[in-house]
Amino acid sequence: MSNNQVDSVVLLSGGMDSTTALALAVQEDVFSKVLAISFDYGQRHRTQELSASRNIARHFGVERVLVDLTDLGNLLAGSALTEREVDVPDGHYTDETMKVTVVPNRNAIMLSIAFGIARARGATKVWAGIHSGDHAIYPDCREEFAQSFRTTMILANIDLEPSQRIYLATPFIHMTKQQIVERGSWLGVPYELTYSCYKGETYHCGTCGTCVERKEAFELAKIGDPTDYAPTPAAV
Amino acid sequence: MSNNQVDSVVLLSGGMDSTTALALAVQEDVFSKVLAISFDYGQRHRTQELSASRNIARHFGVERVLVDLTDLGNLLAGSALTEREVDVPDGHYTDETMKVTVVPNRNAIMLSIAFGIARARGATKVWAGIHSGDHAIYPDCREEFAQSFRTTMILANIDLEPSQRIYLATPFIHMTKQQIVERGSWLGVPYELTYSCYKGETYHCGTCGTCVERKEAFELAKIGDPTDYAPTPAAV
Repeated sequence: MSNNQVDSVVLLSGGMDSTTALALAVQEDVFSKVLAISFDYGQRHRTQELSASRNIARHFGVERVLVDLTDLGNLLAGSALTEREVDVPDGHYTDETMKVTVVPNRNAIMLSIAFGIARARGATKVWAGIHSGDHAIYPDCREEFAQSFRTTMILANIDLEPSQRIYLATPFIHMTKQQIVERGSWLGVPYELTYSCYKGETYHCGTCGTCVERKEAFELAKIGDPTDYAPTPAAV
Repeated sequence: MSNNQVDSVVLLSGGMDSTTALALAVQEDVFSKVLAISFDYGQRHRTQELSASRNIARHFGVERVLVDLTDLGNLLAGSALTEREVDVPDGHYTDETMKVTVVPNRNAIMLSIAFGIARARGATKVWAGIHSGDHAIYPDCREEFAQSFRTTMILANIDLEPSQRIYLATPFIHMTKQQIVERGSWLGVPYELTYSCYKGETYHCGTCGTCVERKEAFELAKIGDPTDYAPTPAAV
């Protein structure tokens, strides 16, 4: 293996869940080398998200690579995450309102790429921060998907020595966002560096599905919310 | 579904196998709309390969999209297919010599992207030209991988109506390259438009693993080989 070898690869969107997954990967073994991967697929909130993931990687002192998938993003357009013409829905993160934010097959694409990079860099673990709150709308965030994907990846890379096999770690797959915040708070995750809002403005809007969910997680966990929310119209 | 709906998506590298898969997809139903997908991942033979796939799509009168993964190609570097510094081995397409041409996790990455595009365009079938000759070296060309990938894709997209489910078609997975050429010849595949050589020069080198395999397929099938091979040093 070449000298750019790493032990773990973490999908880092710059949101709360992936940042907590990064914290877990880093604390698992202080001597392990962790590589964070972020994706630019032309997502509406890309400027904030990518700058968040850069700052978070710097905070943890880990290498971060940015994979440019903007060309693919255009081909997959039609979802609110990549298409400016579709309005991001306000309200709670529930089935009907959030369906518009699905990027077709996103987790399979990103995880396959992460496994490719993991293999190229000799890593034996890929971490993804998918959690139970996503299950209702995103089938590619469910345990069944993760299990099947694990098997597929073992078969796709069965030529690897057993000690080099790459495992998909999904520590939050049965946890709520509240539980993730509780865990992350204990790990000292700098949530003020994370970015969740689907609208992609400088401040979190506080009203879109992910903002509502973010606020709620801190409230339920009884942990101070360090997020800068946009002033409400009444307060302006 | 929007008006850019297609019925099938075909992974089209511009080689013999994927071109024959495209011919099958096109002939399956004369009224079906087929979309060909090619990838630019900085492969050494990209100029020839991409121009071949463009010409082939034009021949069949199908739309072709090119997905730019050059940035990812750099991250996956270290294999002969993407790294200019590694020499392409000559000789037969066997285990030891060909290992150097593996791009980590390539089929899972390309197929996941193809499923994403298929979903975005309403297609219910993704065709891949993987065949038995690749089994020995590439675990992601084997039936076990294809079956597991099918399951993973169903689970990742279980929210689709049953009639919209996307199926992975691998018609050649138990066929040899000779059988593919026989089948393609019967379908009128324009093999003179295809490009296989890993060296990426204007003419096929005739000596690298894929060229040897290509020649052999035509010989075994007793079908005239329309390939322009580079003149041998003795003949210059």
